[in-house]
Amino acid sequence: MSTPNILQIETVDYDERTGELVLIDQTRLPGETVMLRLRNVDAIWEAIHALRVRGAPAIGIAAAYGLCAVLHDYPEADGDGFRAAFARTRAHLASSRPTAVNLFWALDRMQKCLDELPGAGVADAKRALIGTAHEIKAIDMRTNRAIGEHALSLLKPGDGLLTHCNAGQLATSKYGTATAAMYLGHERGYGFKVFADETRPLLQGARLTVYELSQAGIDVTLITDSMAATVMKNGWVQAVLVGCDRVAANGDSANKIGTLGVAILAKRFNIPFYVCAPTSTVDLSCPDGAAIPIELRKPDELKSMWYERPMAPDNVAAYNPAFDVTDHDLITAIVTEHGIARPPFSETLPPLVRG
Amino acid sequence: MSTPNILQIETVDYDERTGELVLIDQTRLPGETVMLRLRNVDAIWEAIHALRVRGAPAIGIAAAYGLCAVLHDYPEADGDGFRAAFARTRAHLASSRPTAVNLFWALDRMQKCLDELPGAGVADAKRALIGTAHEIKAIDMRTNRAIGEHALSLLKPGDGLLTHCNAGQLATSKYGTATAAMYLGHERGYGFKVFADETRPLLQGARLTVYELSQAGIDVTLITDSMAATVMKNGWVQAVLVGCDRVAANGDSANKIGTLGVAILAKRFNIPFYVCAPTSTVDLSCPDGAAIPIELRKPDELKSMWYERPMAPDNVAAYNPAFDVTDHDLITAIVTEHGIARPPFSETLPPLVRG
Repeated sequence: MSTPNILQIETVDYDERTGELVLIDQTRLPGETVMLRLRNVDAIWEAIHALRVRGAPAIGIAAAYGLCAVLHDYPEADGDGFRAAFARTRAHLASSRPTAVNLFWALDRMQKCLDELPGAGVADAKRALIGTAHEIKAIDMRTNRAIGEHALSLLKPGDGLLTHCNAGQLATSKYGTATAAMYLGHERGYGFKVFADETRPLLQGARLTVYELSQAGIDVTLITDSMAATVMKNGWVQAVLVGCDRVAANGDSANKIGTLGVAILAKRFNIPFYVCAPTSTVDLSCPDGAAIPIELRKPDELKSMWYERPMAPDNVAAYNPAFDVTDHDLITAIVTEHGIARPPFSETLPPLVRG
Repeated sequence: MSTPNILQIETVDYDERTGELVLIDQTRLPGETVMLRLRNVDAIWEAIHALRVRGAPAIGIAAAYGLCAVLHDYPEADGDGFRAAFARTRAHLASSRPTAVNLFWALDRMQKCLDELPGAGVADAKRALIGTAHEIKAIDMRTNRAIGEHALSLLKPGDGLLTHCNAGQLATSKYGTATAAMYLGHERGYGFKVFADETRPLLQGARLTVYELSQAGIDVTLITDSMAATVMKNGWVQAVLVGCDRVAANGDSANKIGTLGVAILAKRFNIPFYVCAPTSTVDLSCPDGAAIPIELRKPDELKSMWYERPMAPDNVAAYNPAFDVTDHDLITAIVTEHGIARPPFSETLPPLVRG
């Protein structure tokens, strides 16, 4: 099967010629590289919901381009109707994933763009929205690079690094968040040894992180989530780097299910635990982790998805939260594009968020 | 597909009529119930190595019956040859799994049986060995029931319990070790709510624990290993019960990979962590966990086994230790058939082991 280098493919893009949202279907990786071209709102909603595009920053970019794609053919004469269609599309896309705050951040930014052009015609509004969506993507790229530089300042050549899920290039426009320092360090000869948790149930670590890092030539070893404790106990990990979907004002951070466990293990073995978070992920209006809604997904993701045959009895109960919240006392630092926040986060995060 | 009630099937047995070791092939569960009838030493070695029979006590019983099966047809006239064949078979079976001390315990016990009959003919020796193997199984059954009673004394009706891997009926002759208190409590109306880690990479929790507990009518919920932290944080777990493959003199306990992580999480959430261990699992000659050999298995168990398609790139490295060692400071108590050992284990374990 052909496997083009994933690092040369845009994770999320917009085709201005055809007015389509263009995505790599991440549910088919690493076996198949399938590009999706979408313009129907239900198809875009499904792509986000079914994790064909995933990772907080990539979801935000997909939603912004998705709005442009859905509205691409809207008749130019009907200005009021255009604004109503925008509102409907925005509300629908906002319901695709409940936890990632970047989704709402990107949709808000698109709304603001439209609100700032109250008298504009449909054609001008469409052009402005496309411009804003491109800007959201460009900001993400700069942001990730800046996060990478800050995170790299916390690491030493030869370090063993552990990451959970995929907060990589495939979760963003480029570089990733948790992986940005790995890519930058690799360019500069740091010789990191990376351990990637496979990240059950959806295996983003095995399918995506291991894939993109190995394609970049980074030394990466796949482990099950349950092996992280042993790898740390063996002395092979000098820092944990993870992404996140939402950071509360007190530093509590929601990320892929299993992140909380990794943080508790890191504390046991005195390994620094770094959350890599664009400031668009920080939700100062959310006081703490208890206020972050956690998406519950279907039991079949544990029992039969991916497998040749059912791996548990049909009728048995399964609990499947998509995220967990890492308590702020377990976090050594939160690395943003504007700098590194250390505890107490309620004091150090607000100035960074304000830029 | 027909799924007979697993609780009415013997996990490991010996057919005296045919001289065969009879096993339920656990790699086919829960989809298919396939009984294996084995007498060839390589086939028996493979069944243990490939985890068709697994769980420290069941491995010990299978090895004892396996010796009988291999020697069943040995010519009655050749007494010296019989003893040499016994020694060869014993050495070969001992190499099937390196970590479970019960394997060696059971083989030693068979050796002792033979050594106590220096002048016996082959027929008498065969009969004595079969008797010892039956005794090993009968001891296991009594042992598990006693472990269950002791463990139950640590629990309250309505408790939420979490277990990792399968230290259940399928890992033993009956009752299991970690599950014995669940079965006994269920009979007595305790109304436990059990959470079972799926236990990657071989999914013994999803395939076996959830299966046998739900067949017994126990309230059980499947989770991924990475969800244990959240379930504990939610306040749903009042005790963790796990089995073990070897306990060192200081209490360090080797068990299925992932157990160490669960113990660290339990400590974080102040949840008691109980290791259920027949005294045959306690190896007082082993000073601490560092002296326990840990079996490394093949990377394909992470990357392709079970799956419809490869879940990670072919050429990527994977680390696959089958066990980890839980440090004794993380263990609230070790529950044996002779009573409950609490720290310091180096003082409390020896009297229990001596019975």
